Amino acid sequence: MSEAFLSALRHTLPAEALVLDVERLRAFECDALSAYRALPMAVALPGSEEDVIAVLQLAHAHRIPVVARGAGTGLSGGATPTAGCLLLGMSRMRRLLYLDPLARYARVQPGVRNQAISEAAGHYGLYYAPDPSSQIACTIGGNVAENAGGIHCLKYGLTVHNLLGLRAVTMEGELLELGGTLDCNGYDLLALLTGSEGLLAVVTEVTVRLLPKPQLARVILASFAEVGHAADAVAQLVGSGATPAALEMMDGATVRAVEDFLHAGYPTDVAALLLCEADGTPEEVEADIVQMSRVLRAAGACELRVSDSEAERQQLWAGRKAAFPAAAKLAPDYYCMDGSIPRAAVGRVLAGITSLSAQYGLACINVFHAGDGNLHPLILFDANRAGELARAEQFGTDIAALCVSEGGAITGEHGVGIEKLDGMCAQFNAAELGQFSAIKAAFDPLGLLNPGKLIPTLHRCAEYGRMHVHRGQLPHPELPRF
Amino acid sequence: MSEAFLSALRHTLPAEALVLDVERLRAFECDALSAYRALPMAVALPGSEEDVIAVLQLAHAHRIPVVARGAGTGLSGGATPTAGCLLLGMSRMRRLLYLDPLARYARVQPGVRNQAISEAAGHYGLYYAPDPSSQIACTIGGNVAENAGGIHCLKYGLTVHNLLGLRAVTMEGELLELGGTLDCNGYDLLALLTGSEGLLAVVTEVTVRLLPKPQLARVILASFAEVGHAADAVAQLVGSGATPAALEMMDGATVRAVEDFLHAGYPTDVAALLLCEADGTPEEVEADIVQMSRVLRAAGACELRVSDSEAERQQLWAGRKAAFPAAAKLAPDYYCMDGSIPRAAVGRVLAGITSLSAQYGLACINVFHAGDGNLHPLILFDANRAGELARAEQFGTDIAALCVSEGGAITGEHGVGIEKLDGMCAQFNAAELGQFSAIKAAFDPLGLLNPGKLIPTLHRCAEYGRMHVHRGQLPHPELPRF
Repeated sequence: MSEAFLSALRHTLPAEALVLDVERLRAFECDALSAYRALPMAVALPGSEEDVIAVLQLAHAHRIPVVARGAGTGLSGGATPTAGCLLLGMSRMRRLLYLDPLARYARVQPGVRNQAISEAAGHYGLYYAPDPSSQIACTIGGNVAENAGGIHCLKYGLTVHNLLGLRAVTMEGELLELGGTLDCNGYDLLALLTGSEGLLAVVTEVTVRLLPKPQLARVILASFAEVGHAADAVAQLVGSGATPAALEMMDGATVRAVEDFLHAGYPTDVAALLLCEADGTPEEVEADIVQMSRVLRAAGACELRVSDSEAERQQLWAGRKAAFPAAAKLAPDYYCMDGSIPRAAVGRVLAGITSLSAQYGLACINVFHAGDGNLHPLILFDANRAGELARAEQFGTDIAALCVSEGGAITGEHGVGIEKLDGMCAQFNAAELGQFSAIKAAFDPLGLLNPGKLIPTLHRCAEYGRMHVHRGQLPHPELPRF
Repeated sequence: MSEAFLSALRHTLPAEALVLDVERLRAFECDALSAYRALPMAVALPGSEEDVIAVLQLAHAHRIPVVARGAGTGLSGGATPTAGCLLLGMSRMRRLLYLDPLARYARVQPGVRNQAISEAAGHYGLYYAPDPSSQIACTIGGNVAENAGGIHCLKYGLTVHNLLGLRAVTMEGELLELGGTLDCNGYDLLALLTGSEGLLAVVTEVTVRLLPKPQLARVILASFAEVGHAADAVAQLVGSGATPAALEMMDGATVRAVEDFLHAGYPTDVAALLLCEADGTPEEVEADIVQMSRVLRAAGACELRVSDSEAERQQLWAGRKAAFPAAAKLAPDYYCMDGSIPRAAVGRVLAGITSLSAQYGLACINVFHAGDGNLHPLILFDANRAGELARAEQFGTDIAALCVSEGGAITGEHGVGIEKLDGMCAQFNAAELGQFSAIKAAFDPLGLLNPGKLIPTLHRCAEYGRMHVHRGQLPHPELPRF
């Protein structure tokens, strides 16, 4: 079966667009969630939409599973190959097709890097707003699959809010043209495909909205002696009518790790720091800084520092951006969680994580996209010590359950992939999971496209034993209640 | 069959929640597209989500088609009963359930009027942004079904951009909880349901985002001696980096009709008027007014007037808002079209409409949400003159085809309903229509919910004879090319 498929594949794509030998295939055996690995049967590197259609039609005819992959920077295993699948590497489709500075949009191929769009648009004073941390490397096709966010999505929205159109090919090789530069009619398949983690179709072209670059941006660094005060400040800031362009939080342990690593100039005798940015015209920024400073002080900030130059702003952000590498210095391994909670629950969830940390005997430092209520607890452990990996994973599972119990969600922005499948059992009931599966079947009845990701089977959920512990409910009795 | 169903229905709902006699049923035989009428078998007026679940389960068991209806203000027949269906009137579910001024959201039942949300939120300095012209009467459930827009959606987005969560019940009576106050995982069913015109599920609760009321708003009235200049100004304004809060256009015929009707103080010796609003802080508004005025003058505006008070602003808008009643004075009947086109095509499409007007011997006046490229040509006719209704309808069909040929869409904001079904054949190809049908089947395999709306069958498209004349292609040879 696979021999016949490979033979046909060789007739479909040129030799340089195929990877078949095991050594070169190893480069594709995982994405950034490297704990999960599998070897694909082959990697196809299509150069055009026609190639994608031809390869998918062929794989469909031979019933070969297909996994599409952008830059492989995903953190939840969304691009991990299914063993023996055909991996579709989109890296060669990296042309900027069209940029209209007046109507403010760009049409690009899926392998174009996120940052490359803003670089091209920068010549016209424009940029593409969503800015995931991996934006130097990650591609727009992957951003669509994961509905990527970023530090500034608090003000400018997620990928789905910055898309105008998609071209995508179904597993059967049918081309769908969705959206465009205008709002579309019919069911909103553009939004449905965004964040569908490569299970519904393979994106071959993306039309993104471009925004005028803000004239000015300034950031406030606010120090807090109590985590609860910083958490309150987050809720108060968003409620105050100010629109922070970014609102990030680090707990004291993170701040000290970052200072040791990078010397960003942060005060280290703090329980938490907030970084709160304003952007826009100089007048808007001035007004926002005044208002946000007032709210931060009222919430109990002990010290405020406002960037006075672009260099100082960049320096204040450098520390936040170094939080992950800094964590890597604290322990041999870390496990980066991703959950979201209502802003009002930040204080309670942090207290819960502290309890869990003691219970599992593992340190955990906390970095947040606080304005979105998007947590990134980093659980520190040593995989070479017996049982620590398993304990770290269980700790992570409990944090996810804690997020759900507070009315939150098991991922903020990293996706479900294979990592969070069990968490989906806790977040959705049988009717909702059944509806998700029906959607999948409506696009890919044979289940060949990126199988085993995003949507757990009801069978898996039953085995997991926590079917539907829904929002606002306590996920399981042994979890501490706050 | 229907007798058994009605009998069961009487056991499910109290008598006051049922309408069964023909005289009272007549009130429900059409929505605002009154050319299409049909009598439902019965009207159910559920008072709770439990009622909705019970009624849908019952209708599903008896295979009775169900059509949900809000205030019946829809213009494309989305809430027109299928003959003999059960009509589900959502008007009794009109409670505001919860409003969180700090986190800026409100949870409401589907029968709450759009404007009632802003009235409640106004006590906290907040409002709900989407503002369809019918906002005094239309309900949020209908807004979700149609993905309603409004004058300010240029800056603040459509309904889908202002929703946080939905509760909805499928035809089988299964409750889906989608979104919430956080971004959700899994496929984006929240976006999929929004604009699905009641074909996928019945909405029972809506969580909307609230925004702080702008401190100030001012509007510029710009007069043009040539329609083409006004059209260019629209493209230039959006390309200039300004973000108008609203950008509306009226052609000379509309302006004169409005002046006769209302005396808004518009100059009448013009080819077109633009109304261009700025909102925000006083500083932002000042900066926007300066920039927009410069662009408008450069594009050839002969006169600019800027509102100096809220009263003057309201007066300038009053004329625009009276365009439809003013049109009703010009002829016994008018047919309001709704299409969208790229802003750059506004001039060409207006010229095309002028040609079509001569060809059909029917006057047509034009009102636009210009910033969105959303046209509302009003075709004037007299239904009592033989053949005029048919000519008006054909004129409308040609305008829709013209929009598609310019890369636009057959509706801007009024939905497809039953009115625009044939247009969908021109806008989507067989693969896309097939995908839409698969989505419908994934929610409602028996096709009982709002049948015959939104998605045409391939059979209908084949009969219509214009299958898939896609974007940028000329829809049919006899249409004039510009």
